[in-house]
Amino acid sequence: GIDGVRLLGRLQALGAVGRGPDGALTRLAGSDADKHGRDLVSGWMREAGLRVEVDQVGNLFGTLDGSDAAADPVMVGSHIDSVINAGIYDGCYGVLAGLEVAQRFAETGAGLARPLTIAAFTDEEGVRFQPDMLGSLVHAGGLSVEAALASVGTDGATLGDELARIGYAGAMVPGTIRPSAYLELHIEQGPVLEHEGVRIGAVENLQGISWQRVTIEGDANHAGTTPIRMRRDAGLAAARVVTFLRDHVDASNAPTVATVGTMRFEPDAINVIPSRATFTVDLRDPDEDRLKAAEAALAAYLDRLARQDGVTVSTERLARFDPVIFDEGLVRRIEQAARARGLSCRRMTSGAGHDAQMMARLAPSAMIFVPSVGGISHNPKEFTEPADLVAGAEVLMDVVAELCGG
Amino acid sequence: GIDGVRLLGRLQALGAVGRGPDGALTRLAGSDADKHGRDLVSGWMREAGLRVEVDQVGNLFGTLDGSDAAADPVMVGSHIDSVINAGIYDGCYGVLAGLEVAQRFAETGAGLARPLTIAAFTDEEGVRFQPDMLGSLVHAGGLSVEAALASVGTDGATLGDELARIGYAGAMVPGTIRPSAYLELHIEQGPVLEHEGVRIGAVENLQGISWQRVTIEGDANHAGTTPIRMRRDAGLAAARVVTFLRDHVDASNAPTVATVGTMRFEPDAINVIPSRATFTVDLRDPDEDRLKAAEAALAAYLDRLARQDGVTVSTERLARFDPVIFDEGLVRRIEQAARARGLSCRRMTSGAGHDAQMMARLAPSAMIFVPSVGGISHNPKEFTEPADLVAGAEVLMDVVAELCGG
Ligand SMILES: NC(=O)NCCC(=O)O
Ligand SMILES: NC(=O)NCCC(=O)O
Repeated sequence: GIDGVRLLGRLQALGAVGRGPDGALTRLAGSDADKHGRDLVSGWMREAGLRVEVDQVGNLFGTLDGSDAAADPVMVGSHIDSVINAGIYDGCYGVLAGLEVAQRFAETGAGLARPLTIAAFTDEEGVRFQPDMLGSLVHAGGLSVEAALASVGTDGATLGDELARIGYAGAMVPGTIRPSAYLELHIEQGPVLEHEGVRIGAVENLQGISWQRVTIEGDANHAGTTPIRMRRDAGLAAARVVTFLRDHVDASNAPTVATVGTMRFEPDAINVIPSRATFTVDLRDPDEDRLKAAEAALAAYLDRLARQDGVTVSTERLARFDPVIFDEGLVRRIEQAARARGLSCRRMTSGAGHDAQMMARLAPSAMIFVPSVGGISHNPKEFTEPADLVAGAEVLMDVVAELCGG
Repeated sequence: GIDGVRLLGRLQALGAVGRGPDGALTRLAGSDADKHGRDLVSGWMREAGLRVEVDQVGNLFGTLDGSDAAADPVMVGSHIDSVINAGIYDGCYGVLAGLEVAQRFAETGAGLARPLTIAAFTDEEGVRFQPDMLGSLVHAGGLSVEAALASVGTDGATLGDELARIGYAGAMVPGTIRPSAYLELHIEQGPVLEHEGVRIGAVENLQGISWQRVTIEGDANHAGTTPIRMRRDAGLAAARVVTFLRDHVDASNAPTVATVGTMRFEPDAINVIPSRATFTVDLRDPDEDRLKAAEAALAAYLDRLARQDGVTVSTERLARFDPVIFDEGLVRRIEQAARARGLSCRRMTSGAGHDAQMMARLAPSAMIFVPSVGGISHNPKEFTEPADLVAGAEVLMDVVAELCGG
């Protein structure tokens, strides 16, 4: 089995990297905190006897060689970048559990046939640099190195400059390591497993993700002197879009979710009608046709708004990923491994995007979920019971052992 | 008559102070730009032969002595602070026209009986430090010096620290100069005069102003994994308030106006449901009962929202001013002065707040308006025709001459 105490200790140690004076954890891709997290993880990889490599978009790999030098490795990955005011599990759990599995194989001299590569992909969260899953998308050939490095962050910096600054612009060409299979262990980040009292989720599919930035332009004018009928209020129009999206998903009778997570008014002054509102729209659905329908409904609403409120509306695509169906054989292996350990297991859909969604373009892929208490994620209250963290890592170890052979 | 070219030249010169690299004019109260503007105006006051004084909240006064040393002065005032991305006329026109009038009296040796004081009040806009009309409110005894200096700006600085930093924390006790009458010349900032082709507005009343900050707290959670029914989305709740306010004023059949000019989501990340939304509400109506009704409707809606959406709502009062009725005698003098110069004139209501609203607590007060092209203000496109600027200053001069006697 794995060393549960070591895994939990590393989760806490990595979770301490990137805390501000107020105690909040924010470790955005390419930041100083990301550098310190990468230093910590790559140090642990070397300690465990893994060979460390960094590619041109900062993806970090640690490989334990197998006896069959010609075989493509099994890859276990996730990410260590975080959202703003984050929890400590999202992404880190998958990387550190993979590392723990590799380290146990190294320590016990179990002798794998295939190599085992642990990956920490760059900018999975997409909070600073869009699109999300950026590093794994490049690895899978879905985005060029140039385009990825040119991605402009919410603070105006480019990913390329920031990777060079923190010393993680590597030399390896992305995609050089071609896995025979890809596994990702992750907290569920939703309420299903806890609600049903199930220990392990065998993730069989992952919903599509549509990210857009919407900009609405109206006219700045005086809040006291401008009659209502003469206003072109960009902030009001933005608010209408937010409530429209909720009404739309409420009425759609589909599992579509819609979120407006960011909002900015300009000039942002108490007695000035907003001249501009900028916000993001995150739409998701496991079914591509329904996701397209939600995008079309939004586009139609924005058209109507432009006509009715006299505002100017423009949209920019920040990310668009189709729903993914994972490899049936791998999903079945996960179910079997869980059952063999006496852990309850159910098949499920991932509501979050993951690096596995990108890696599925390259290799048979699947994911293992463990419960999230209260279904809370992207929040400092994110929590998974230690026993569940250890159980998930053990299921991962068993599936890796099968896939690597030896 | 006045020297129109000098007045227009000073308006342009003062309008150049506080422009950023993008050419946008922002001269917030207590900023470096405010200091440079004050230096310019106080220099012009001294050049014109006025005695310059600064009080403890930074109100700047320039006085031309009269022959009757015991008489209370006539005061002409406004402000030189601006909103964000402002025009050059709002406030500055009133101060510089007052200065021009005083300078002409000094130059022509017309010999006033009463002193004439030109005032530039601190932080009229209220964009950085609330409440608006802060300096004139303190002068009129409506806010203590201590409370005013402790006002915390949108950037976290206090007014007291900022005034000390820029060298405009004066020694004079506010209210020391007690005017016998107060006049304020201002651009209309609304569409009425231009729409009706009238040159001069004799402002007989000014609507009430209610400013609040609303904070809504929900739960941060993952945009992809959190089912709609489990969300407590602070951003959605804020959007509902924005659309409610518009629907309410549309349905009210009253001249009430409602504006949400500022908005902030936290953590403000694309894939995180907002845990907090903070925004301001500006409500105005010339009738106090209707203003109270609008405030009550908002409060009732916020209660309902807290119950229905499960969010927590709190409000903070940023400013509250009753509607004001100006002095009938002064309003009539303005009308007569306009007619005597062959300028069309109408009585009107001010939609904007002004220092005159505060000074009316101390002394008979009234305002003179000139047309705003397109009714545009709090916008770099703010514009008034030079001929209208000169006409307004001449009406001011005539009324001042009558009031000062000599
Ligand atoms: N797992 C996870 O939170 N990924 C971030 C990308 C997204 O789903 O928004
Ligand atoms: N005149 C003017 O714009 N005053 C600012 C205060 C307000 O009315 O919002």
